[in-house]
Amino acid sequence: MKDKEDILRRARVNVGHLEGVERMIERDEYCIDVIRQIQAIQSSLNRLSAKILENHLNTCVTTAVRGDDPDAREKVLGEITEVFQAANRM
Amino acid sequence: MKDKEDILRRARVNVGHLEGVERMIERDEYCIDVIRQIQAIQSSLNRLSAKILENHLNTCVTTAVRGDDPDAREKVLGEITEVFQAANRM
Amino acid sequence: MKDKEDILRRARVNVGHLEGVERMIERDEYCIDVIRQIQAIQSSLNRLSAKILENHLNTCVTTAVRGDDPDAREKVLGEITEVFQAANRM
Amino acid sequence: MKDKEDILRRARVNVGHLEGVERMIERDEYCIDVIRQIQAIQSSLNRLSAKILENHLNTCVTTAVRGDDPDAREKVLGEITEVFQAANRM
Repeated sequence: MKDKEDILRRARVNVGHLEGVERMIERDEYCIDVIRQIQAIQSSLNRLSAKILENHLNTCVTTAVRGDDPDAREKVLGEITEVFQAANRM
Repeated sequence: MKDKEDILRRARVNVGHLEGVERMIERDEYCIDVIRQIQAIQSSLNRLSAKILENHLNTCVTTAVRGDDPDAREKVLGEITEVFQAANRM
Repeated sequence: MKDKEDILRRARVNVGHLEGVERMIERDEYCIDVIRQIQAIQSSLNRLSAKILENHLNTCVTTAVRGDDPDAREKVLGEITEVFQAANRM
Repeated sequence: MKDKEDILRRARVNVGHLEGVERMIERDEYCIDVIRQIQAIQSSLNRLSAKILENHLNTCVTTAVRGDDPDAREKVLGEITEVFQAANRM
C-alpha cells in the first residue's frame, strides 16, 4: 500500500480518539458532547476510507482495468460501486 | 449512458415522491412521517447515484484508465475518490 | 406547522433541482456532475429534515413530554431516536 | 447514564474492531476489505450514538422540557436538531 504510513497513522489516531470516547462515557460526560465526539470520529473514518480507496484506485484498480481479464476488471469496478453505495448508508 | 432508461425512470420516481413530500407538508401531516418519507427518498437517491457511478466506471473510467493520457486517468480516479468522500457526508 | 412557508419553499426548491437532474440525465451530461448534483440535493434534504425536526421538537414533542401520558411521551422520544439512527444511514 | 454498562461495552467493542483495522493495514490486506470493515465500524458507531441519544432524551431532555427554564429547554432541543443534522453528514 502506497501512503501506508499516513494511512496507519490516521487509523491509530482514531483508535486513540475512540478510547477517549470510552473515558467520556466512564466519567458520565454530557451525552451530546459524547455524540459530537463520535460524529467527529466518523468524519475522520470517512477521510481514512477515502484515502484507502484513492490508494486502491491507483494500484489494484488501474492494474485490473488495464489487464486482459474481463472478470478481474468487472470485480474491481463492482466493488467500488458497492462501497460507494454502502458509504451513503453510513 | 448505458442503462439510461432505467436511470431516468428512477430519477422521475424520485421527483414524484418529493412532490408527495410537498403535499404532506401542505396538508400538515405528522412531522415524523414527513421526515421518514424524506429519508426514503434519500435512500433512493443513493441507489440512483450508485447506478450512475456503475455506468461511469464501465464507460468513461475504463476508457481513461486504459488510455495513454496520465492526466485523464488521474482526473477520473480523483473524481471517484471525491464523490466517495462526499457520499459519506450526505 | 410553524415555519410552514419556509419548509414548503425548501421542499419545492428540491423538486426543481431534482427535475434538473432528470434533464441532465436526458442530455447525457457527465456522470460525475450528475452525481455531484444529486449529492447537493441530498444535503439540502438533510437541512429540510432538520428544519422539520426542529419544528416537531418545539411543538408535538414539547407538548407530549410536558403532558401526563407516559405512553405518548415514550412514543415521541422513541421516534426521535429512530429518525436519528436512520439519518446516519442515509 | 442509564444503560451505562451496555453503552460502555459497545464503545469498547468498537475500539477493538478499530485496532483490527490497524492490523489489517499493517498486514497489507485487500483495500476493499479494509474499507468494508471501517464501514461496519461506522454503522456500529451509529447504533452507539443512537443509544446515547435515547438515554439523553429520557433523562436530561425530559427534565429540561418539563422544567421551568425556557433557555434550558431551548438549549436541549437545539442540540438534538444539531446532532441530527450532523448525523446526516457522517
